[in-house]
Amino acid sequence: MGMDLERFEKQLAFIKEIDKEKQIFRQTYISDGTRKENDAEHAWHMAIMTLLLSEYSNEEIDVLKTIRMILIHDVVEIDAGDTYAYDEVAKTTQREREEKAADRLFGLLPEDQAEELRALWEEFETGETKEAKFARTMDNFQPMMLNDATDGKAWVEHQVAVSKILKRNERTPRGSEELWNYGKENYIEKHVNLGHIIDDRRM
Amino acid sequence: MGMDLERFEKQLAFIKEIDKEKQIFRQTYISDGTRKENDAEHAWHMAIMTLLLSEYSNEEIDVLKTIRMILIHDVVEIDAGDTYAYDEVAKTTQREREEKAADRLFGLLPEDQAEELRALWEEFETGETKEAKFARTMDNFQPMMLNDATDGKAWVEHQVAVSKILKRNERTPRGSEELWNYGKENYIEKHVNLGHIIDDRRM
Repeated sequence: MGMDLERFEKQLAFIKEIDKEKQIFRQTYISDGTRKENDAEHAWHMAIMTLLLSEYSNEEIDVLKTIRMILIHDVVEIDAGDTYAYDEVAKTTQREREEKAADRLFGLLPEDQAEELRALWEEFETGETKEAKFARTMDNFQPMMLNDATDGKAWVEHQVAVSKILKRNERTPRGSEELWNYGKENYIEKHVNLGHIIDDRRM
Repeated sequence: MGMDLERFEKQLAFIKEIDKEKQIFRQTYISDGTRKENDAEHAWHMAIMTLLLSEYSNEEIDVLKTIRMILIHDVVEIDAGDTYAYDEVAKTTQREREEKAADRLFGLLPEDQAEELRALWEEFETGETKEAKFARTMDNFQPMMLNDATDGKAWVEHQVAVSKILKRNERTPRGSEELWNYGKENYIEKHVNLGHIIDDRRM
């Protein structure tokens, strides 16, 4: 009778620990431009986007699986920190830092759930299943949308070149051609034209 | 060929509008106690808790449905604001303010999705299905856990009496007896004993 307390307290330990995601700030600004967005908010936004936009996925996806992946995809940043997409130095050590973080953080959970969430995180990182492809498309589309809402604020601050944005988004069409086409035209090219993104294609 | 742009732009309008939830602050503090939690973070945390804790639901639940409900349950606060659980004056106008907000906010979406999300929100509010019962248990358990993590900070600030907390949680066991029993003992009674919650039961 009653709950397995040892199991429950492991689950609680993880649930409490991930509260720290609310203090991991990204480079993207929230839509009123007053402050940067944190990982918890970003994951919530991506999850709702998935509920509403899964119809644009190239392949039919398991929505619950995609949302589970999205909700936990940034947990490792509690230890490893947010690595800005265009920080080439930080990116060289990113994988190692994040593997170590995954060991510690998912390791707080009971074994079955630790394995399950770790596998989901790996699946997201690898990006080869249809759910992971769509989740990664959300991960790139959401900040583009916020950058557009804030007149390209983060792009301007970091003086980002369009070639880097296109490189970063090489795999975005793999989740949804339609969303990528929309984003490229209405976010990226628009802000190149507005001078918020450096156009290094004609150099 | 290609996407229905009119439909997509309605979806985008909603997705952009709900970014405002990141600036709707609750009375609960995040676990390091440095600032209050916002609605987007709260919903993200509840969604992950549901992934991990659905095994404690009194009845077997549809996890995706529960998570969909949780992700959008506070959208109406964008217009109606956060009504503190123990603010009896604000609570008299809460339903009316939230209905009006639901009309406007869900009305941004294409009709099929507007109806679907509106129905989910109503289901959460009514709290009679097994998914709504569990979602509401998460909605009460999550802030209890954060209050415990911050030495009862929000309880102390508002000088909350235990009778009000118990009244507020009357329906919490309907989603999960096990989680309620744990929370009552390890959060509520603990903080009554620590003097962080006023004990008005013996008066």
